[in-house]
Amino acid sequence: MTDARNNQVSHMKWWGWGLDGVGFHWEDKPGFAPFVLKAVGLDLHTAQPVPEPSFADLKVPKSKATATFTGALAGIVGEDDVTTDDLERVVHTYGKSLRDLVRIRTHKIERLPDVVVYPDDEAEIQKVVDAVVAADAVLIPFGGGSNIAGSLEPRADEKRIVVSLDLGRLNKVLDIDEESGIARIQAGALGPHLEKQLNDKGWTIGHFPDSFTHSSIGGWVATRSSGMQSDKYGDIAEIARGMRVVRPGGTLVIRALPSTSSGPSVREMILGSEGRLGVITEVTAQVHRIPAKRDVYAYFFPNIEAGFAAMQEISESDATPSITRVSDARETGFSLATSKSRKGLDKFLAGTVLPGLMKRKGWAKQPGGLENICLSFIGFEGSVEHAKRQKKLVDAIVKKHNGMGVGTGPGVLYDQKKFDTPYLRDFLLDRGAAGDVSETAGPWSKLADLHAGAYAAANAAYEKIGRKGWIMSHLSHSYHSGACLYFTFAFVGGDDMLGEYDVVKSAIQQSFIDNGGTLSHHHGVGLEHSPWLEQDISPEGVKVMRGLFAVTDPGENLNPRKIVADVRESISR
Amino acid sequence: MTDARNNQVSHMKWWGWGLDGVGFHWEDKPGFAPFVLKAVGLDLHTAQPVPEPSFADLKVPKSKATATFTGALAGIVGEDDVTTDDLERVVHTYGKSLRDLVRIRTHKIERLPDVVVYPDDEAEIQKVVDAVVAADAVLIPFGGGSNIAGSLEPRADEKRIVVSLDLGRLNKVLDIDEESGIARIQAGALGPHLEKQLNDKGWTIGHFPDSFTHSSIGGWVATRSSGMQSDKYGDIAEIARGMRVVRPGGTLVIRALPSTSSGPSVREMILGSEGRLGVITEVTAQVHRIPAKRDVYAYFFPNIEAGFAAMQEISESDATPSITRVSDARETGFSLATSKSRKGLDKFLAGTVLPGLMKRKGWAKQPGGLENICLSFIGFEGSVEHAKRQKKLVDAIVKKHNGMGVGTGPGVLYDQKKFDTPYLRDFLLDRGAAGDVSETAGPWSKLADLHAGAYAAANAAYEKIGRKGWIMSHLSHSYHSGACLYFTFAFVGGDDMLGEYDVVKSAIQQSFIDNGGTLSHHHGVGLEHSPWLEQDISPEGVKVMRGLFAVTDPGENLNPRKIVADVRESISR
Repeated sequence: MTDARNNQVSHMKWWGWGLDGVGFHWEDKPGFAPFVLKAVGLDLHTAQPVPEPSFADLKVPKSKATATFTGALAGIVGEDDVTTDDLERVVHTYGKSLRDLVRIRTHKIERLPDVVVYPDDEAEIQKVVDAVVAADAVLIPFGGGSNIAGSLEPRADEKRIVVSLDLGRLNKVLDIDEESGIARIQAGALGPHLEKQLNDKGWTIGHFPDSFTHSSIGGWVATRSSGMQSDKYGDIAEIARGMRVVRPGGTLVIRALPSTSSGPSVREMILGSEGRLGVITEVTAQVHRIPAKRDVYAYFFPNIEAGFAAMQEISESDATPSITRVSDARETGFSLATSKSRKGLDKFLAGTVLPGLMKRKGWAKQPGGLENICLSFIGFEGSVEHAKRQKKLVDAIVKKHNGMGVGTGPGVLYDQKKFDTPYLRDFLLDRGAAGDVSETAGPWSKLADLHAGAYAAANAAYEKIGRKGWIMSHLSHSYHSGACLYFTFAFVGGDDMLGEYDVVKSAIQQSFIDNGGTLSHHHGVGLEHSPWLEQDISPEGVKVMRGLFAVTDPGENLNPRKIVADVRESISR
Repeated sequence: MTDARNNQVSHMKWWGWGLDGVGFHWEDKPGFAPFVLKAVGLDLHTAQPVPEPSFADLKVPKSKATATFTGALAGIVGEDDVTTDDLERVVHTYGKSLRDLVRIRTHKIERLPDVVVYPDDEAEIQKVVDAVVAADAVLIPFGGGSNIAGSLEPRADEKRIVVSLDLGRLNKVLDIDEESGIARIQAGALGPHLEKQLNDKGWTIGHFPDSFTHSSIGGWVATRSSGMQSDKYGDIAEIARGMRVVRPGGTLVIRALPSTSSGPSVREMILGSEGRLGVITEVTAQVHRIPAKRDVYAYFFPNIEAGFAAMQEISESDATPSITRVSDARETGFSLATSKSRKGLDKFLAGTVLPGLMKRKGWAKQPGGLENICLSFIGFEGSVEHAKRQKKLVDAIVKKHNGMGVGTGPGVLYDQKKFDTPYLRDFLLDRGAAGDVSETAGPWSKLADLHAGAYAAANAAYEKIGRKGWIMSHLSHSYHSGACLYFTFAFVGGDDMLGEYDVVKSAIQQSFIDNGGTLSHHHGVGLEHSPWLEQDISPEGVKVMRGLFAVTDPGENLNPRKIVADVRESISR
């Protein structure tokens, strides 16, 4: 854990995900090594992991910040809360995308922030923003640093001074309006810290993205995040009712209203703005009383078609589960392979009950046999009676689609493991393999095409780069008219790992658009997805968005070129 | 009914709401005359209604459209689909706000559209938009003409040619994606017409605003409408997933996605844009299979505090009703007064059962006694079992708050009468009285203040203008964190009825803002609410919105100055 100069604000590893000393381990997962060997041809028994990167080996370009400028910042936030320290600057350079991890490991850090500031409150932030604009510098807000869309890095060719504004000090739940179920929360508060403050008073935010442990509520708003229980609690766009955004010359205030007809929604412009409209300092979010029941049940379907059909019918029905998730056959295989020996699911599967049941249902006789079975998790929250009833409604639909329930055991495991997945990328990179994710959302009628399209695109890309590659997927986040499809892909890369990665990632992204999906369901645009924005919201849509940024930030001082980056900028990183 | 020149598109009365020959009648409602006398001092038995306005009396200013320009339009849409006819121009001048009705009755029509066009499709609309911009003219899209926020009228001092683009020909449901529950609907389709097309195939849009019979889906999107069953189906901002908007030089296309993280939401910029970003030509909307049960139950509460508390608890509970609505004591009195003799509620109340029950519950002994009782409607939709269960959950909460259910009889009446209310304004105007509505939304914790604040503001305003005035209210549209409060007010006006109206309406609007509410929950901004926009979304928020319009419509050709009108413009009409 990298401590900020003046403490109080901690960060993830400078070179990877999460906390120092925490990582992914395979030795206690007997199915994992054979799985990886089969999937991408990597033999974990012989692969020699590279040693942990040493900061001393890194050549950090000098800060461009002038003494006058840092002095001015110090005059605002205090001497101890401004730093040009190399480690601090490196920590604030990238997010944690695969591209970021590879670049930091290969010492490709051309352009870092020149100075990092840790303001204590909104008044200081207003002064920093105004000073940055007055000096024609560049400001990039920084929350938890978990971004995977390239939203945090300075432009490679940026000539001006770049300031990273770390919101880590603004981490409090300021107030809970218990009658309205809304809480004022400072933008820099990380998931666990804000959830604990809410829990202590009997409340929950109900927003649990995979990045939860290392992402902030300001970041969730800035990237249009979505959490695992979004079926019940909504995406952050629904949860975040009010917000305060420091802009040059003044603070934009959206009051927490349940609904309004006040013209084009400025609230919905701030959502997904990735720092381009200013610095989000406070969010007034919907919160809920901690429910009496919060269960995740596991189900199996004979194949993904049955799984999709069941999720669609659930979304159309009167049932209101909190989570709807179904892994395809490959991701199911992965889940089983990462189970610890003799525990939970593995134990269950190793027994005779489940295989016997599946046989009786005729799953073994379908094309592909038991290789096609799909693991599903469905969550139920609310009063004991409500959760029970929702489960009853869901069970009937699952049964109709030839699925079967296997209880809460695997769901508990899922709940425990859900925030650990990002560690796997560092584990693979240590052994020369690239692993990453891409997700989309589309109408129910297009999900099968989206699924098949991404598989075909990835496999064609693997063929093109001559690598044995892997792809797997799950459906999550159901809506009335469609759902999110989340893909994980991996391959053992060569010397030009990022070049190869671009081929695969681009192919998958293009397949999303070609099959009626969006460029990202909940990771934002940044630089990474910017090349597909025109195809997503049409050239006229991009013109409107570009115009919005041009007029609200004429000097391009606020995290410039993110979201509507030129295509050239995006792909030349 | 005013027929368009070339038929196919019909319009409301040029001088008032709804269909020719249809109006509000009091003779069959024995409680109504005494009620009106008590409320605003108007004696219906002696009041002489003014005769129906005669179009021949109207002096219509000449069209400014040049022959060259109308010729160019005719070249695009066809000779028969361009008109400078006086009646056509008058019909397209205003919406149906009280201000509009008074102005048309008093022949205050300074600036009309110069020409009306009826394009057949999007391709024609693109050419019209481009021709308008090329000629530096002004374009105002027109759907059902039911707007009550001043969104349709040309600026009084507009020197350029003004074109009203009537979308009435674009009235079809083009396609239903039955798997995804979304339907492509042309923007000009009016409520009953599109609902019938959906119903014929077993679907419903679930969006039923008071204006339903005379408003279009394009207009719903352009003004951020909300329908009565929004608790279940969502506001139009939720329902409208995809849209096509013709802009100068090209068409903006938002595909129908269940969710996306593609930057500031352009979809949410189009929602509420009131023609300022272009012409909405098509909406892809969520649709639902017609539910087996669709019931509206009536309840009584001893007072409004109990009603509010029950609605809040319902919104927080596991129950998911389709409608939550509770009238305050005064609106309850109004509802009872508009009941027809010996039918439904009136019959029920005239009996001995209900008063007996209320007495047993001790309601007569509360401060104000039975005068304070509040009528509530709660809707349940879904499968028979689901509707039954939701009712059970709701009934328990109602009981906890000392309320009581009285069955579906009054609910059926409510369902039948719900679209008739707007006719009442014309009835009152015929007799010299001004009646209008203002609605807001705010957090649950502020509803009591919002309610009391609007009453105090209206009463102070009535005192100021020296009139006996009336105000009543209901809560409707519940959300997790708050609800909509809808106010109806009336008074017998003098010679300067609009001046007096401004005093009352402004006072109510200001009380909304002062007590934590928004300027409008579902009627849009237009010119009418524009003076409160800065207080609603903050000066920085208005700067962002103003910037958006400036950059997307630099020539101010697209319904200019609506939403962010100068305050002067708004109040000097």
